[in-house]
Amino acid sequence: MADAETDPAQLIATMAAEARAAATTLARLPTETKRQGLHAAAAAIRAQADAILAANASDMARAETAGLSGALLDRLRLDPARLAAVADAVAVVAMLDDPVGQVIDARTRPNGLVLSRVRVPIGVIGIVYESRPNVTADAAALCVMSGNAAILRGGSEALASNRALHAAFVAGLEQGGLPRTAVQLVPTADRAAVGAMLAAAGLIDLIVPRGGKGLVARVQAEARVPVLAHLDGINHVYVHASADPAMAEAVVIDAKMRRTGVCGAMETLLIDRDFPRAAELVEALAATGCTVRGDAGVQALATVDPAAPADWDTEYLDAIASVALVEGVDGALAHIARHGSHHTDAIVAEDVAIAERFLAEADSAIVLWNASTQFADGGEFGLGAEIGIATGRLHARGPVALEGLTTYKWIGRGTGQVRG
Amino acid sequence: MADAETDPAQLIATMAAEARAAATTLARLPTETKRQGLHAAAAAIRAQADAILAANASDMARAETAGLSGALLDRLRLDPARLAAVADAVAVVAMLDDPVGQVIDARTRPNGLVLSRVRVPIGVIGIVYESRPNVTADAAALCVMSGNAAILRGGSEALASNRALHAAFVAGLEQGGLPRTAVQLVPTADRAAVGAMLAAAGLIDLIVPRGGKGLVARVQAEARVPVLAHLDGINHVYVHASADPAMAEAVVIDAKMRRTGVCGAMETLLIDRDFPRAAELVEALAATGCTVRGDAGVQALATVDPAAPADWDTEYLDAIASVALVEGVDGALAHIARHGSHHTDAIVAEDVAIAERFLAEADSAIVLWNASTQFADGGEFGLGAEIGIATGRLHARGPVALEGLTTYKWIGRGTGQVRG
Repeated sequence: MADAETDPAQLIATMAAEARAAATTLARLPTETKRQGLHAAAAAIRAQADAILAANASDMARAETAGLSGALLDRLRLDPARLAAVADAVAVVAMLDDPVGQVIDARTRPNGLVLSRVRVPIGVIGIVYESRPNVTADAAALCVMSGNAAILRGGSEALASNRALHAAFVAGLEQGGLPRTAVQLVPTADRAAVGAMLAAAGLIDLIVPRGGKGLVARVQAEARVPVLAHLDGINHVYVHASADPAMAEAVVIDAKMRRTGVCGAMETLLIDRDFPRAAELVEALAATGCTVRGDAGVQALATVDPAAPADWDTEYLDAIASVALVEGVDGALAHIARHGSHHTDAIVAEDVAIAERFLAEADSAIVLWNASTQFADGGEFGLGAEIGIATGRLHARGPVALEGLTTYKWIGRGTGQVRG
Repeated sequence: MADAETDPAQLIATMAAEARAAATTLARLPTETKRQGLHAAAAAIRAQADAILAANASDMARAETAGLSGALLDRLRLDPARLAAVADAVAVVAMLDDPVGQVIDARTRPNGLVLSRVRVPIGVIGIVYESRPNVTADAAALCVMSGNAAILRGGSEALASNRALHAAFVAGLEQGGLPRTAVQLVPTADRAAVGAMLAAAGLIDLIVPRGGKGLVARVQAEARVPVLAHLDGINHVYVHASADPAMAEAVVIDAKMRRTGVCGAMETLLIDRDFPRAAELVEALAATGCTVRGDAGVQALATVDPAAPADWDTEYLDAIASVALVEGVDGALAHIARHGSHHTDAIVAEDVAIAERFLAEADSAIVLWNASTQFADGGEFGLGAEIGIATGRLHARGPVALEGLTTYKWIGRGTGQVRG
């Protein structure tokens, strides 16, 4: 262990080998066994609440001494209600449909060979996250339910909390008959361990970063392992000329202001030049306390701050919106193609043909018609949970839950067929 | 163009921008338009056969002067029959089912939001290949039919052939109403252009290498763009004790000897210690002209060469097989887990429970029961064609055809839903 503790690559290689063995077991487990393990993990988190909260208190004390920001302290903090929610979330994942073993398609070839494509787990998934201890249990539950082994690496400021949560979780797994190596926590605060995970091609099959843009950017830039993530959520709402004004106002205000810090929040409002209530829409948005930064057209309609060129490429994650007037759906699509981040974009319109064009042509993981961008969420999509939202173009896009954590294999059953 | 010709990164960036614009058009095209374009491309290849064969003759002359090997010359060579087959293959792809627009799933949320997941093209696909000019048309046809733009980079020894084939292909596309920038050929023999393609994250969405292990290894090691490929096809046939001896012999001989140079060929034969006809099976394989390298157990049964440790990790692509005796299905699975390449592995058995265990637990893109590993092929799987076989764990596995060249987007249709 001395070597493993000092050499991050060796540490990760050892953990990944144990994870691979666990993944082989997990891949074969019946749904009921995985459910029992996760329910036992949820129960263990509840039973060990005192120890977890005490560990969290020690993390909080260190973080306060170190002068961490209020927002960071809030993310780090657990209390009995938050911890109960963590346990509940594990129990919710346990009740989701199990994608493993689902037959995606089946065909019988003219030679009698029966081919089917069957969902299987991906294998070993690395989760790299920041200060929120709840990710420890959330990500672990999603990985286990989808038959994958997890290697967790949380922020160093949450190490005591994560250790306590992890200890409870794996004690529950073991009680439910699952291998405790199914979920492993990187035991060191050494940042080089993250680099070792990102370099572990062939040992770790997928990395999911959970956290701010800095973390995701580092992971995407460095990783030799495939990454499932989104960097930006520069989301647009386009209000077409045919939009119902009241609906436009409700959707825009919800998209921007319901929660400004989430990745599904609207950052840019595109108003059609022919929308007759543009000034009222901008004023209604501003009246909610949102700072509006408008282009020249918007400045002519209402009293707003001027938008700088960088505004169109900025994810504020705050009560700020950039607003532009655009020329029809072509203008809106052109703006989104240039400035969007392929996350979530919405149109408000009564004109069905225009809406369908927008839905077809906006090149985003999620496109919405007459609905708020804040629906960009696995729970809201009926997936029950999510490991994150992906804006890449391969494997899985948008909210990723259990199915996105699986792949497939081809199974062929024959009677002695040779190709000849 | 002077800069672009001297700066590979600039050249690829320019081509990729044109490809992105073409991809946006291609993504919206009705199936019939894509079919017309591909049929016109096939017709243009036939019509321009003289020019293409003349260009190929000049490539061949240069290659002979340069002293290229016979195998390489054979891959490079086109003749009227081979060229007709290239055109036919394009026409076959044109008649495949179009995956774009297929609705993968649909759900209505309790709030009335109607969500669907719809297949869309990936975008811009880079194909890096070696001396086979037919890949130019094959890969282009698969990309266009799946709504993707293609950037092709073939081997420098085939540059004249590829230019002539590409010119015909895009002339056909244009005649069919498709943008000629849908399929672009890197116009330079500069190897740095490949490096620029592999580094073009965000510009090229996926790289598909087509060629030998050296090419694939370079692409996998260097690429910052996701890669769909397989490096090795170290495929196993496991003959269980319950196997029908005649079927085992037929499957093993086909898997090894039908074509020894294909990625689906068997490289290692695993014979159960309890299979009563092991000696006869080894002798039958040797009698076909296959060199057998056996472990100690096999050496005791028949006159064979001894296998060295490296044999179990070797893809011979030749009339050579390594053969080991194993202890039951556990022994076979352990050997495959240690030495396999996650490509194609088969079991021959009459015992259904054993066969199903093998199918479930062998961690390969393709697992087969009582059938030859040489079925590892998109055409044999009923996919009509293939861009290649993938052994990675994400996105697409096994033979990849049109569907593997698509991704999906989430479309939500609402009536003013806000998250509130």
